[in-house]
Amino acid sequence: MTMLRLPTMVDVHVHMRVPGGEHKEDFDSGTAAALAGGVTQLLAMPNTSPPIVDAAIFDVAATQAAAQARCDYGIYLGATDENAPLNPALQRRAAGLKIYVNDTFGTLRVESLATMQNHFRAWRGPGPIVVHAEGLFVPACIALAAQYDQHVHFAHISRGSEIVAIRSAKERGLPVSCEVAPHHLWLDERDLPRLGPYGDMRPRLATEGDRKVLWEAVRSGVVDCIATDHAPHLREEKESNSPPPGVPGLETTLPLLLNAVQATRLTIEQVVALTATNPRRLFHLTEPAESYLEVEIGALWTLPERGWQTRPDWSPFAGERVAARLRRTVLRGQIAYEDGVVHAAPGSGRDVREY
Amino acid sequence: MTMLRLPTMVDVHVHMRVPGGEHKEDFDSGTAAALAGGVTQLLAMPNTSPPIVDAAIFDVAATQAAAQARCDYGIYLGATDENAPLNPALQRRAAGLKIYVNDTFGTLRVESLATMQNHFRAWRGPGPIVVHAEGLFVPACIALAAQYDQHVHFAHISRGSEIVAIRSAKERGLPVSCEVAPHHLWLDERDLPRLGPYGDMRPRLATEGDRKVLWEAVRSGVVDCIATDHAPHLREEKESNSPPPGVPGLETTLPLLLNAVQATRLTIEQVVALTATNPRRLFHLTEPAESYLEVEIGALWTLPERGWQTRPDWSPFAGERVAARLRRTVLRGQIAYEDGVVHAAPGSGRDVREY
Repeated sequence: MTMLRLPTMVDVHVHMRVPGGEHKEDFDSGTAAALAGGVTQLLAMPNTSPPIVDAAIFDVAATQAAAQARCDYGIYLGATDENAPLNPALQRRAAGLKIYVNDTFGTLRVESLATMQNHFRAWRGPGPIVVHAEGLFVPACIALAAQYDQHVHFAHISRGSEIVAIRSAKERGLPVSCEVAPHHLWLDERDLPRLGPYGDMRPRLATEGDRKVLWEAVRSGVVDCIATDHAPHLREEKESNSPPPGVPGLETTLPLLLNAVQATRLTIEQVVALTATNPRRLFHLTEPAESYLEVEIGALWTLPERGWQTRPDWSPFAGERVAARLRRTVLRGQIAYEDGVVHAAPGSGRDVREY
Repeated sequence: MTMLRLPTMVDVHVHMRVPGGEHKEDFDSGTAAALAGGVTQLLAMPNTSPPIVDAAIFDVAATQAAAQARCDYGIYLGATDENAPLNPALQRRAAGLKIYVNDTFGTLRVESLATMQNHFRAWRGPGPIVVHAEGLFVPACIALAAQYDQHVHFAHISRGSEIVAIRSAKERGLPVSCEVAPHHLWLDERDLPRLGPYGDMRPRLATEGDRKVLWEAVRSGVVDCIATDHAPHLREEKESNSPPPGVPGLETTLPLLLNAVQATRLTIEQVVALTATNPRRLFHLTEPAESYLEVEIGALWTLPERGWQTRPDWSPFAGERVAARLRRTVLRGQIAYEDGVVHAAPGSGRDVREY
């Protein structure tokens, strides 16, 4: 067994369900899960109820976050057909602009080229434009990135063909980046019979071939970040007649990644780049001072069915044998998490756009 | 009244309905309509029954065309999820590769990024890749053109937002071109109540604002070609419970364009570029020798309800007052059309890829 000290992680893609879905997750339970997973900065998606598409709803989410968050957080603005241009002061408060080009959980969706052009023309950041774009919408967003010289970050890329498009765009010097979710790296459509609704998310699990291309793209640096797309839904919702798509991920990503290091599929330097250095650079986030993780390498354990911090308390990775464990998360000099217990208090987290 | 001699026209986008839809149009009636409209070279789309997606069906269409065509013709190959890469010898025989990214008449459709990449990787021409792409699929195809350095020609562009994307791509030096159909220049959604199913086509009639942007793009050279998307359907089909989309256009384009010259909306040089010089250059077509049009300028007449060469014998432009008339189409030194009578015999037309 060896102890390893690592930079704290950033998760640029989580769903905190605030406002409107607090029975699934809120900033209290969600940031506890983050700290238990080694994440000290998370960026929360805007497909809430109502969606975060203007200053009033943004304030509702930001107020709840300030009161409840145990780790640092940013909040995305969601694009609609009506809300371009977004107020520049509001843009500066946001983690980024999220555009749902493909259909997923919630009502946010942009299908029109004219709307996309309006948002690409008007967005100033500092966060990037993050797109849920699958298939042909990937090259569509690449062309928009080129036309408007906008940094476009592709959320949860899941298919080999999409990697081909993004790799080529990067080679041509276009301002694009991308993330891959752990479930698309560790699971594929062959896991669906076993997982049932617990394996349903958007983008859906892809083929074994897609999974191989994703791993190669992670290793070669075409993939910039690992982000969980932590999408909590209760067990009873997943077992209902119309199960919502999405799986939790905040607490399982670090052990899975360190397992990949043990298996020599990744180096520890690649893990740090994918979870800390790259997302901070791409999203213009400052690393919190005096913050680090302590990880025990070689500790064999099995990811459990229950006992997680996330409110739904299940994981699609339950049963997976891993060989590393997070012992301690230190945030601004304080032990925020240690050996299964979250110590950071609600309200101690800070807004990433305010430091 | 003055007589004007013009180069013969090319129409890079017509539906000859061969094989399988000959009751709507075939190369006999369709090329008669072409000559009566000033067109001596037309390129026929592959969304037939069965669609033209392999050498066997291509041969069926080419054999009928050789026997029946009164003017010169090329035949497109249609892309499917299964037929990439297409045989290089077959590619050389084709007018181009048509990819239906959006849904329209017929069964041809490509929705997958992987299929698009396969076709873009494999296509060698000499004809371009022609796409039916609307909305966000326009930037998607622009990015594919850039990635694979493939000439992409956008069929029947109909919206201002699409022009914005194409103009920008051209400014960045990307290998793209586009056509606009007369119905999108002379009609818009305000004409729908009057036209009913006779005003239904894909892309649908757009807004008055879109129409203004299209006109400006035609005048500024962003639009390379006028192409009719001549899509013949019988009156009884258009008046059925499920009317198919599409309108005839071969015989009405030249009078409408010359009317625009009379109204100083276009110059005669622009008309020649849009209907002859540009399409021949972009599609690598040789102008037939000793061929020209004789047009009478100042002859006021009304486009009629009936009496057209096209088999469906109707026009969405019936009732339009125009101030120019095609008197004579001369093809390879022979009078192919004169004053309402088609003289060129079936079988006298040639395959544009064989000279």
